[in-house]
Amino acid sequence: MLLTTYSTYPYLKNILMIKIPVEVSARHVHLTQHDLEVLFGEDFVLPKAKELSQTGEFASTEVVALVGAKNKIENVRVLGPCRTFTQIEVSRTDCFFLGNQAPLRLSGKVIRSGAIKIIGPKGELDLTEGLIVAKRHLHVNPDEARDLGVLNNQNIKILVDGPRQTIFGEVEVRVNENFNMNVHLDTDEANAAGVVGDTYCEIIK
Amino acid sequence: MLLTTYSTYPYLKNILMIKIPVEVSARHVHLTQHDLEVLFGEDFVLPKAKELSQTGEFASTEVVALVGAKNKIENVRVLGPCRTFTQIEVSRTDCFFLGNQAPLRLSGKVIRSGAIKIIGPKGELDLTEGLIVAKRHLHVNPDEARDLGVLNNQNIKILVDGPRQTIFGEVEVRVNENFNMNVHLDTDEANAAGVVGDTYCEIIK
Repeated sequence: MLLTTYSTYPYLKNILMIKIPVEVSARHVHLTQHDLEVLFGEDFVLPKAKELSQTGEFASTEVVALVGAKNKIENVRVLGPCRTFTQIEVSRTDCFFLGNQAPLRLSGKVIRSGAIKIIGPKGELDLTEGLIVAKRHLHVNPDEARDLGVLNNQNIKILVDGPRQTIFGEVEVRVNENFNMNVHLDTDEANAAGVVGDTYCEIIK
Repeated sequence: MLLTTYSTYPYLKNILMIKIPVEVSARHVHLTQHDLEVLFGEDFVLPKAKELSQTGEFASTEVVALVGAKNKIENVRVLGPCRTFTQIEVSRTDCFFLGNQAPLRLSGKVIRSGAIKIIGPKGELDLTEGLIVAKRHLHVNPDEARDLGVLNNQNIKILVDGPRQTIFGEVEVRVNENFNMNVHLDTDEANAAGVVGDTYCEIIK
């Protein structure tokens, strides 16, 4: 069942809108099985700590350190399950702190992305690519996409209301049977918009 | 002379807009003369390193450390000249890192704001208030305000275009004879909107 609310946005006032949950992605790492074993030891199986909103995805119990040209960030969560590519998602603020450059990319587009070193308990990886700043996006299943009137790969605008009211443009729609409706923002975006606790956004046309 | 450009925003397409420079405020500290002397020694005079965009304001050569409940941030710039209140401006990201809470406030509104410890080369301050996250704002002189059609204390929306296109609501207008036209964003806001190098924004009505 979809949650709805009356829009608070002036020209949409009293229009019934679908409330879309906002999820904040803190910096995290996706690993291939190979890279997982380099960092955590041979035949290592990633232990599940917590299911995430997207079916099958989970936060593991494990963390790694990211080592940049200028600084190191400890305790970066490894997400599971393993993927066919290793991808490290950080905020632009993290990039400045690390001293490393990373392009703005939709998850999965790691070709010629940023370099980073990862340190795990049993080994390290010196990656020439994999570091990205995630492009903001909306996860939806086909039914939800139809209800919202959005198409796969479309870029939409979403309104996060509050004392730091922000309209994010260039939010890419990703439609998949396994997805659950959620807008994913990184920590810079969430902090800029004053996202605190359970937050919902709406699509602005 | 005001710079103008044709709006890139769909419903304002081909409308001539005034280009407003965007300035990014990194974390910084304003001190009273008393607090300056506690941190840097008696009769200390704050050395000027660089003029800032607002007339009379300058970045000093000096830095302090902020010590929070969880972490410490070194090399935080002291701005001058001294003020009648001590105010520490950080981003929401910094608050999480420091482990300290700070309200969203327009500069100058420090009453019952956040606690923070400041360490300087000659002493330290254990402040019970002064830590804020700055509310985004537009500096303008009265002529610029008239040209833009905005009033003091009005909250406006501004568009920062680009691959992370963002419309910031709740941007407070501050009109003063000594001001020069500039939108001030903090680092979370600038990073969320992909601000890089010289950036201009426009008012969205």
